[in-house]
Amino acid sequence: MQSVRLDDENNALIILDQTLLPRRTEFLELKGLKEIWEAIYHLKVRGAPAIGIAAAYGVYLGTKWPGADSFEALAQNFQAAKDYLASSRPTAVNLFWALDKMEKRLQSEPHETVGHALKALRDEAEQIRQQDEEMCKSIGEHALALLEPGMGLLTHCNAGAIATAKYGTALAPVYLGQERGYGFKVFADETRPLLQGARLTAWELSEAGVDTTLICDNMASIVMKEGKIGAVLVGCDRVAANGDTANKIGTSGVAIMAKHYGIPFYVCAPTSTIDKSCETGDRIHIELRPDFEVTEKWYEEPMAPAGVVVYNPSFDVTENGLITAIITEQGICYPPYGDSLAKLDLG
Amino acid sequence: MQSVRLDDENNALIILDQTLLPRRTEFLELKGLKEIWEAIYHLKVRGAPAIGIAAAYGVYLGTKWPGADSFEALAQNFQAAKDYLASSRPTAVNLFWALDKMEKRLQSEPHETVGHALKALRDEAEQIRQQDEEMCKSIGEHALALLEPGMGLLTHCNAGAIATAKYGTALAPVYLGQERGYGFKVFADETRPLLQGARLTAWELSEAGVDTTLICDNMASIVMKEGKIGAVLVGCDRVAANGDTANKIGTSGVAIMAKHYGIPFYVCAPTSTIDKSCETGDRIHIELRPDFEVTEKWYEEPMAPAGVVVYNPSFDVTENGLITAIITEQGICYPPYGDSLAKLDLG
Repeated sequence: MQSVRLDDENNALIILDQTLLPRRTEFLELKGLKEIWEAIYHLKVRGAPAIGIAAAYGVYLGTKWPGADSFEALAQNFQAAKDYLASSRPTAVNLFWALDKMEKRLQSEPHETVGHALKALRDEAEQIRQQDEEMCKSIGEHALALLEPGMGLLTHCNAGAIATAKYGTALAPVYLGQERGYGFKVFADETRPLLQGARLTAWELSEAGVDTTLICDNMASIVMKEGKIGAVLVGCDRVAANGDTANKIGTSGVAIMAKHYGIPFYVCAPTSTIDKSCETGDRIHIELRPDFEVTEKWYEEPMAPAGVVVYNPSFDVTENGLITAIITEQGICYPPYGDSLAKLDLG
Repeated sequence: MQSVRLDDENNALIILDQTLLPRRTEFLELKGLKEIWEAIYHLKVRGAPAIGIAAAYGVYLGTKWPGADSFEALAQNFQAAKDYLASSRPTAVNLFWALDKMEKRLQSEPHETVGHALKALRDEAEQIRQQDEEMCKSIGEHALALLEPGMGLLTHCNAGAIATAKYGTALAPVYLGQERGYGFKVFADETRPLLQGARLTAWELSEAGVDTTLICDNMASIVMKEGKIGAVLVGCDRVAANGDTANKIGTSGVAIMAKHYGIPFYVCAPTSTIDKSCETGDRIHIELRPDFEVTEKWYEEPMAPAGVVVYNPSFDVTENGLITAIITEQGICYPPYGDSLAKLDLG
């Protein structure tokens, strides 16, 4: 399942419209910069790595489409495309990271011809995608070594293939295990209020033929108690220097339950999410989101009394003591994380 | 807030239509046995005690309405009304308990006149309601002694006033505290999949002017971590002889998190829910409910991929070691529960 793909022959960017999931699997063929801008803006493409990849391909196509008879004209195309795409989701760090990487490549190459420069841009975008895929696969390999065939696995939110180039992060070992006949049984927390587990994780795993069971978030305890879960796998948004980890709201509760039942709790973390400048999880700011996501989004009618006060934090921080291991593309880090994370090469 | 009330002068049973909550507060004036049957069948009245009270008043009115010129005719009216109401919700234990209690009263009184017999039935129904109110109030008083003014309280599902004669069980100390200016801050888990916390608890507490905040189930950990919660209060469906407690799905997870954060976890339990014949929670059968409650109920469109496997247990069992105290109308039981519960008078 590739959620973002370049079709260079047809001058198109192909993206999976994630806003239609799980009801319809529709790939959009985007042939203009405005369409790409809107796809990012309207969250048709979501997941930090997937957004970065879409932006990289997008700025390549946005440079190519208008045509250019000189390197200067091409550089102008590039700048216009970059500025435009950068305005699509101003808070998406990966969007800017990818666009900057593309710009550096354009500046650093000796561009004798327009064709050469375009090829360099295409290569760079391809490399961004390729590196993300390799990173995911590497996390998957390391994680898989910790798991046993037939194991029940619990996951929260969506750290899956459609958010990345391929494989995902927390779901990478599931896909690799699936290729190798491991026969995992995955339990997906629905993940209120935005239901990424129900809408995205349950969907992409089912599509891949993985044995998947959807549960409500408050059923994590009973499936653990009943012996259905051998390990928990989650992604992350940010890891502090001491191993405290911010991830989708509810993750810390799952970690506490896993510890209670003696079940390993693994965080799958690209090294890009490890922030050594952030000493502990207390330093991580928790975004509060709008009430209506809890009270009425998705519903036919509001499901809470009008005017009720709602608390809707989008993330929580899992204390390092609850985390069995942090699995990166460079290898597995064990406690104490202050030491093991410090040994990683964070560039 | 009384969800079931007799209006004897107008020959009517007044019930709050709980199926319309939280959108509309509508009291139904029921003036026929079929209407009462349908109100129970369609869950317009819900909560074991409230159903028992509605059945008691219902069988009284169902005996009175047709009129009778002899005790025998009246006894026939009673039998017909009892049999009919008993068919409304065949699995509701409290329904049968209340109808049997009404029958015993009719049989045990020396009924010289039709008027006397009717009065005995009305008194019995009133007593069932009154005793439930006293039981709730007593639980509330015992629980309140464990709490401090201004405390943040977390509750799960709805063990509230509208499920009982008055006060509720887990919410009884909240209402008593409200009357006495305690200024509690209550956090209500929405309680997926049926959303009793959002639809009922948040509604009834808001109506009573209690400072109420609605959260998703997976936000219990963060509000505890942030120091917002001083105690957890939950109701129960069944308590085993060793203190293991069955309650709405998700309760055990809340208990595990409370223990992790060092927050007292209190179960409010009428002694009628304590089952000494059930040795441990392992003996409690967990009902599985339909998939559609998770995948599409309430929603405008299904929120999970078609055909996905769903696990939807309606209850879970909280181990006795996670429970700080079990609060009954007879007093507070502390661990070891095998001893403290054994001392209760269970009739």
